[in-house]
Amino acid sequence: MEVIARIRNDFPTKFGLPRQAGLAPSLRSKIVFEPAYRVPEALRGLEGFSHIWLIWGFSATSGTPTRPGSEFHWSPTVRPPRLGGNVRMGVFATRSPFRPNPIGLSSVRLEGIEDDGANGRVLIVSGADLMDGTPIYDIKPYLPGVDAHPEAADGFVGTHAQQLLEVELAPELAERLSPSQQSALREILAQDPRPAYHAAHPDPKRIYGFTYAGLEIHFTVEAGRLKAFG
Amino acid sequence: MEVIARIRNDFPTKFGLPRQAGLAPSLRSKIVFEPAYRVPEALRGLEGFSHIWLIWGFSATSGTPTRPGSEFHWSPTVRPPRLGGNVRMGVFATRSPFRPNPIGLSSVRLEGIEDDGANGRVLIVSGADLMDGTPIYDIKPYLPGVDAHPEAADGFVGTHAQQLLEVELAPELAERLSPSQQSALREILAQDPRPAYHAAHPDPKRIYGFTYAGLEIHFTVEAGRLKAFG
Repeated sequence: MEVIARIRNDFPTKFGLPRQAGLAPSLRSKIVFEPAYRVPEALRGLEGFSHIWLIWGFSATSGTPTRPGSEFHWSPTVRPPRLGGNVRMGVFATRSPFRPNPIGLSSVRLEGIEDDGANGRVLIVSGADLMDGTPIYDIKPYLPGVDAHPEAADGFVGTHAQQLLEVELAPELAERLSPSQQSALREILAQDPRPAYHAAHPDPKRIYGFTYAGLEIHFTVEAGRLKAFG
Repeated sequence: MEVIARIRNDFPTKFGLPRQAGLAPSLRSKIVFEPAYRVPEALRGLEGFSHIWLIWGFSATSGTPTRPGSEFHWSPTVRPPRLGGNVRMGVFATRSPFRPNPIGLSSVRLEGIEDDGANGRVLIVSGADLMDGTPIYDIKPYLPGVDAHPEAADGFVGTHAQQLLEVELAPELAERLSPSQQSALREILAQDPRPAYHAAHPDPKRIYGFTYAGLEIHFTVEAGRLKAFG
């Protein structure tokens, strides 16, 4: 498996990162091809598709038991955040990174294909759930005729719909972000970036923090309301 | 990348194989886990999903330029069958196997999870476009909330809808197949398994052949009508 591209965006770490593709539709990312794959012809026709698939590597899932070559490099069961972090499901029934082959799959919106100086042609996408620098192994067009099954049964996921939080950004934080960065941050915070266990056992005094767009974002959560400050 | 499972079905070669997932919804396949991944707990909760993703290897794309380690192991442009085989598109705008990393992505319907003797628990799926023995690297649940975009623009694909053929199975062929094998074979043949160049330059006298369910299937095509015999 060769790295063909890397994603670039405002998330240097996985904390705060959306847990699935599409949860933060305003979040823009740039896909920069590695020099060997910086071939404009390879993108011919891609502009006609509104969505693309990214097949990528869970490269920086810190704390994972993934150790290639070890017989303990995957876990048959995992605790999905959606279930509050205390129910075990089979790894193949989840999108968890703790898999035999730590490969991620995300559909993202293709916003454009641009010239980016020394980077050559880059893809601008929105809705990605990949952190900055994540290696990408393949890019495919999204084909609604074969890929879209809106009627599909979604197991334990559908019965545990995410409750969105109300989000309040402190003015001194908001003014340091562009309008689209503000929108993306609001979407991300509304999804409740706290660890599942904390969300299930809330402490309104606890201050959480993560890095976004070069800023330290801090927040507290009380009674369904998230207050973010710098 | 470790092989976690292999698919088992009635297609020993790629000729005749559906060109995309879902084109032959009656085609059943069995997914048999490799011994190291034959862990029943890893499937817990999967039964609640109607569709799953398979991430797999284009292991037997004979005639491909894929030679790992060579700088010529992928082609920046390919000729999609959908466009008659004479128009070049960028490989990332297609689902062609001639990619930097020869990985396939298919959504299939999960029909059931069964005990299969020495094979342990196996998945029964329908609509797969993988040939018998294809290695599978990952299995993920299909999440309609994040994976289904029925409104997505499908580039050159949508404007070149496949014209289905009328199919006639000779009685002596039909009687050697089970009803579900007959249904699958009809769906496969209706998609026109001829090479794209032949379909664009038809010869009604030409006899095509491929192996399916242990039988040699032969067929001719004339004026939108396919006649199959044993």
